[in-house]
Amino acid sequence: MCRWLAYRGAPVLMEDLIIKPKDNLIHQSLHARAPRTPTNGDGFGLGWYDKHPHPGLFKSIRPAWNDMNLLDLAAHIESPLFMAHVRATSMATIQETNCHPYRYKNWLFVHNGQIASFGLFRQKLMTKVAPEFFGNILGSTDSELMFHLALTFGLEKGVHGAVAQMVKYVEEVGKEVGIDSAIWMTLGISDGESLWAFRYGSDGKGPSLYVSPGIAELVKLSPHVGKLGEDAVCIVSEPIGDYQHVWKAIPENSSVTVNENGVEVKSFTT
Amino acid sequence: MCRWLAYRGAPVLMEDLIIKPKDNLIHQSLHARAPRTPTNGDGFGLGWYDKHPHPGLFKSIRPAWNDMNLLDLAAHIESPLFMAHVRATSMATIQETNCHPYRYKNWLFVHNGQIASFGLFRQKLMTKVAPEFFGNILGSTDSELMFHLALTFGLEKGVHGAVAQMVKYVEEVGKEVGIDSAIWMTLGISDGESLWAFRYGSDGKGPSLYVSPGIAELVKLSPHVGKLGEDAVCIVSEPIGDYQHVWKAIPENSSVTVNENGVEVKSFTT
Amino acid sequence: MCRWLAYRGAPVLMEDLIIKPKDNLIHQSLHARAPRTPTNGDGFGLGWYDKHPHPGLFKSIRPAWNDMNLLDLAAHIESPLFMAHVRATSMATIQETNCHPYRYKNWLFVHNGQIASFGLFRQKLMTKVAPEFFGNILGSTDSELMFHLALTFGLEKGVHGAVAQMVKYVEEVGKEVGIDSAIWMTLGISDGESLWAFRYGSDGKGPSLYVSPGIAELVKLSPHVGKLGEDAVCIVSEPIGDYQHVWKAIPENSSVTVNENGVEVKSFTT
Amino acid sequence: MCRWLAYRGAPVLMEDLIIKPKDNLIHQSLHARAPRTPTNGDGFGLGWYDKHPHPGLFKSIRPAWNDMNLLDLAAHIESPLFMAHVRATSMATIQETNCHPYRYKNWLFVHNGQIASFGLFRQKLMTKVAPEFFGNILGSTDSELMFHLALTFGLEKGVHGAVAQMVKYVEEVGKEVGIDSAIWMTLGISDGESLWAFRYGSDGKGPSLYVSPGIAELVKLSPHVGKLGEDAVCIVSEPIGDYQHVWKAIPENSSVTVNENGVEVKSFTT
Repeated sequence: MCRWLAYRGAPVLMEDLIIKPKDNLIHQSLHARAPRTPTNGDGFGLGWYDKHPHPGLFKSIRPAWNDMNLLDLAAHIESPLFMAHVRATSMATIQETNCHPYRYKNWLFVHNGQIASFGLFRQKLMTKVAPEFFGNILGSTDSELMFHLALTFGLEKGVHGAVAQMVKYVEEVGKEVGIDSAIWMTLGISDGESLWAFRYGSDGKGPSLYVSPGIAELVKLSPHVGKLGEDAVCIVSEPIGDYQHVWKAIPENSSVTVNENGVEVKSFTT
Repeated sequence: MCRWLAYRGAPVLMEDLIIKPKDNLIHQSLHARAPRTPTNGDGFGLGWYDKHPHPGLFKSIRPAWNDMNLLDLAAHIESPLFMAHVRATSMATIQETNCHPYRYKNWLFVHNGQIASFGLFRQKLMTKVAPEFFGNILGSTDSELMFHLALTFGLEKGVHGAVAQMVKYVEEVGKEVGIDSAIWMTLGISDGESLWAFRYGSDGKGPSLYVSPGIAELVKLSPHVGKLGEDAVCIVSEPIGDYQHVWKAIPENSSVTVNENGVEVKSFTT
Repeated sequence: MCRWLAYRGAPVLMEDLIIKPKDNLIHQSLHARAPRTPTNGDGFGLGWYDKHPHPGLFKSIRPAWNDMNLLDLAAHIESPLFMAHVRATSMATIQETNCHPYRYKNWLFVHNGQIASFGLFRQKLMTKVAPEFFGNILGSTDSELMFHLALTFGLEKGVHGAVAQMVKYVEEVGKEVGIDSAIWMTLGISDGESLWAFRYGSDGKGPSLYVSPGIAELVKLSPHVGKLGEDAVCIVSEPIGDYQHVWKAIPENSSVTVNENGVEVKSFTT
Repeated sequence: MCRWLAYRGAPVLMEDLIIKPKDNLIHQSLHARAPRTPTNGDGFGLGWYDKHPHPGLFKSIRPAWNDMNLLDLAAHIESPLFMAHVRATSMATIQETNCHPYRYKNWLFVHNGQIASFGLFRQKLMTKVAPEFFGNILGSTDSELMFHLALTFGLEKGVHGAVAQMVKYVEEVGKEVGIDSAIWMTLGISDGESLWAFRYGSDGKGPSLYVSPGIAELVKLSPHVGKLGEDAVCIVSEPIGDYQHVWKAIPENSSVTVNENGVEVKSFTT
């Protein structure tokens, strides 16, 4: 089980959200609370937007808690929209290409969870990926494949529809090989403008997902952040900071859309 | 363009062939002579047989010339049959799963060369791999896929036939996407008993390949090796040691078989 | 706080002791029980003796639990005398030169614990190292410096005396800078023939240390090991295997000597 | 022999100088021209200033030419003052703490060259470092020690004087151990405001050093850079870009000072 965080708001140093708050993501990587796997020490990644058309990526197979580059980059890179991910796996190999976020053009994608018995139908799922996206698959995770299936199903034209089709397709192919509840996931997705998140489990029980409270509370969370924009939003696997009780749990089988209109939580079905 | 070496004979410390000789593989990794890519600094790997049923592997993405572990392991591991590979690439990502040798059960496989315009038909080639081998694909190279296609075509039952079918299949699918000369390769393959090598180019021009001279010369090559068995044989991309003029160039489109009957060089056609 | 294991006995595959037993060292690295630092994910190392005059070393900054090379090497390297170490630190940098064991000629050295407020007197301690050993210091840990101070005090001529002098010297210099209880340690040391271990704390409380029970129990511990020699001994930070209650805790301020005469536990004082 | 580049001017993406120009630093790392060591594949580092009080650092032991993080960071981080360094060594270990630039508070330091027979007097030089700086030494290079000796001799109060004293001291201690020409160096130093460079050899022959031509030429060099400030200056080990003949070689035993008053080249003596 992995952990991730996504932020959309006024530009902040990444360290203000991933390193400085109490129980931050790096801290979580070393002291996970109630996990199936106790430590997220199998690599990490950052993806951030700035004025460059495509987002930047920094990935490492070192545990996040002992990577000096991560500390420096998080203390120097400011961004209005970014994602961070710490990985734990007993499955795909530990290599940078298996670290999240995954990127395609202006898109970023992070995942927590898994496709059950992925090995049984990985090859079949790969054949479904449209050729124009296939060359962008660099690693061997279920997560990266889910991203490229969603792209194949039209992610660039409509996020909710493409994610729903991807989930449905994976469940269908899963059933063909005898897997009843194929998907267990939270997703974070961005095109550089909006931020989307999904919580879903084929059995109705996806991994936990939380959205930050309003701006007033977020400032309490990290007073050093300074003046965040009115619409600053943070989405996380596990709450961070000093006021964790005020974070809102996203219900099972839901999507979250964060854009200039604020935060919208909706039911998500395939 | 990569470089590799394979040895079959009496047990020797791996350093006796990959580190101590003049112009050894590590030296070649830093000072390639007439290569398309001037430095083989994109990772390396060792695969060796011992009394364990499956061969051991050591892979690293560090340049071979600055890896302290490599020096120690080569100085301490003795083997009667092993392969070493140094990698240079402008293509697939630098990660351990893309380093040679590749392994399946008791089999090892190294490759120098490439599939031309691999990206154009990688996905199609992947769909051809038999499901029982697909889960063993961990990286993203053309080389690893060639190995698993050869396995699919029956490598375990007959090496020459399976390699010929693999080459033919790749050339055919290549032609479908407009690639006339799809394959450029030398291969080293072993099941732990025999050693096979292939030199082939779809255009008739494969990368260079050499076989060591008889035992008398091989001792001259590395006097410190001590008493090698009568049937010791070394196959290399580029000659090593002090008597490089006595190494025998393998002709274009040939195979080499090394086993208890000695060395046999034959024509290789698809 | 780190974890280590040392073995002396009939040659065994290293995996038989560091990977296969229940609660083995790799498992401990991910699930430490009652530690100050909860995870030993800051690198690891193996040092082993064979017929080569100097021991081999394999070190990596990856967490032990996700290093594929470690699994392969432990499954292929057999040794009658070896040490393994998993590291956790909030102090010296994560780099291979800071991973244990440390080596000098035929000597190996592992340490668990620390010199309190090391930064305050590291420079002074370094000036005490004899010039003939100084060039062998490659990293920046207190552990490596303790080893080279022990060498300076004559480790090669007498282990107990040199370790006692090293401890005494560190405590003295510590007092000069206001540190009352400078040392907290268990040590594992070998010259390739004998194995020594020490448990000591300046305040009378060193880290835990255990010695394996007699051969009968050790076989129960790892039945797959097969025929161990009569004098097989394993020393560990924390018990491993299925019969942990039969491991013997080494008392505070003690040394253990393991050689052809068996195991001797003595009081250790400076 | 290493290679480095330092830039001071209007903020630019680091890629505009280290990746996009012809014969850029990354290209040099793979294809060094007339070097003693043919490839700068032993790690690299970036140090850059922004509005944060201390500079950021990114270091890696991977060859610069195959590090995906480097490409992304250089394409996303903009800076008005930065340094980049690619390393080649047959001496100190390949580890991040041995990669340049070195940092102390707001200072950065890069070095090309070496202290001759450094091992003979490294320990003595270390004892000279003032205790308040000693804890900042993390690696084992001659370069890092030169930086901390310069700090000890008052670098923060006067760069030329401190560097001169450092050089003189190293030469003196070198003579005590029989080394006549102890130092061979180019240095790049910054406090975040000014940029200094030095070319010096104890034997009168330091490594090559070049300063960029005026702004008109620099724009030709990298037209994509856009509007550089009038006072943009680039200092390099080897010229880069399309108009290499217009770069000015810095004479032997000289210093270069770059600040708001422009570029001043002076004689440098100890």
